[in-house]
Amino acid sequence: MITFYDIPSALPGNAWSPNTWKTRYSLNYKEIPYKTEWVEYPDIESLCKKVGIPPTSKKKNGADHYTLPAIHDSSTGIALAESKLIAEYLEKTYPNTPKLFPLGTEALQHAFLDAYSATLSAYWQFILPVTTTRLNPPSEEYFTRTRTELFGKPLKDVPPTGEERVVEWKKLQDGFAVVNKWYEKNGRGPFIMGDTPSFADFVVGAFTLFGKLIFTEDSEEWKDIASWNEGRWVKLVDSLEKYAQIV
Amino acid sequence: MITFYDIPSALPGNAWSPNTWKTRYSLNYKEIPYKTEWVEYPDIESLCKKVGIPPTSKKKNGADHYTLPAIHDSSTGIALAESKLIAEYLEKTYPNTPKLFPLGTEALQHAFLDAYSATLSAYWQFILPVTTTRLNPPSEEYFTRTRTELFGKPLKDVPPTGEERVVEWKKLQDGFAVVNKWYEKNGRGPFIMGDTPSFADFVVGAFTLFGKLIFTEDSEEWKDIASWNEGRWVKLVDSLEKYAQIV
Repeated sequence: MITFYDIPSALPGNAWSPNTWKTRYSLNYKEIPYKTEWVEYPDIESLCKKVGIPPTSKKKNGADHYTLPAIHDSSTGIALAESKLIAEYLEKTYPNTPKLFPLGTEALQHAFLDAYSATLSAYWQFILPVTTTRLNPPSEEYFTRTRTELFGKPLKDVPPTGEERVVEWKKLQDGFAVVNKWYEKNGRGPFIMGDTPSFADFVVGAFTLFGKLIFTEDSEEWKDIASWNEGRWVKLVDSLEKYAQIV
Repeated sequence: MITFYDIPSALPGNAWSPNTWKTRYSLNYKEIPYKTEWVEYPDIESLCKKVGIPPTSKKKNGADHYTLPAIHDSSTGIALAESKLIAEYLEKTYPNTPKLFPLGTEALQHAFLDAYSATLSAYWQFILPVTTTRLNPPSEEYFTRTRTELFGKPLKDVPPTGEERVVEWKKLQDGFAVVNKWYEKNGRGPFIMGDTPSFADFVVGAFTLFGKLIFTEDSEEWKDIASWNEGRWVKLVDSLEKYAQIV
């Protein structure tokens, strides 16, 4: 049995984090049994140390940085963090389940993920300041503090306003348009490979669903994103709905 | 019969341009009969107008910009330029030939190409000033003039020197290392999809072969590139040798 460690929010269903959504989509798509354990931000490090989950990076001060998603697989004793590493682990350990990286596409998917990540640069200034308001108090304090450090100013001053907002929002739209141009090339179906989802879709779906959940479905922001690229992003999230169960 | 329009150099075999190499690899891989017609830079525009090959972009002054590679296919009457468009045309028109974009990978390959292109940014300052010395006089004059405009200074002043050269060359090495990390993910074979080449390999192969031809095999530059990433780039060019006939 796999334990999947995720960060809760105050939103219905708790789930919100784009990085952990990648793993939820992966587990559900592969139909691997698991249960979710919710961990508030300030508890992640002690949880990881207890379970034996390795850090994923170093902090600025050189200390180990522990992040979610992470899993512990009781059938192998393996514990690890980071959505791409988890995806590769699941693929290898459960070879007779639907493929996250269909044969021959592993390298192309990794190039896609790097390229996709670069298209999202304008996203954070809009979404992170709202994200913090959706979290439970212990995570909210941690998230606000660390993201304030990241931006170098209070989160309330991060979202651009006036003309700058228009320019930055257009950059976000242009980023989505780049990804749309790639998707258009598949010639069939909502997924990057056509009618079969793969890990690339779970990543794009996770970051898109993140917008829908954090801005909320009725927000101007989500309505705008939903209108872009002939509704591709709504269709993608909807097409992944069957892999979105929170268990 | 297809006529393939390429730009000659003074190098043995004439061929050198990375963009036209993509098309040569594509035609040879698909085993589609063609003959090469060599066109010096100053003659490209009039050739395209005569054959009915559309421009691929606009110049700064708003005028049409005509580029090679281009093909004219006498069996369909179609004439077009730009290696990706040509690849898509060949794929559609000759469906029973080896695939440049194996089913399901079309979108991923396009994302790869955008991501790959971004890794090459440090290349041009080193290679374009040498390239001009390899061309025939009519193309040399045209190439030097247009690339001088591009860099905003004489080509002889473009290659970095001293410490700056070390830094910029390291950037190039880092770019190759990014692409190497993607390739490593395929887990088997020299190609991005493993043991079968696809258009992504023809693009990476073309830019790598460009380095080998322009710097020349005995140069410090090529020897250095050849030593990177456990010889991956030499192996890639060698693995594509069977699709490198100049006809």
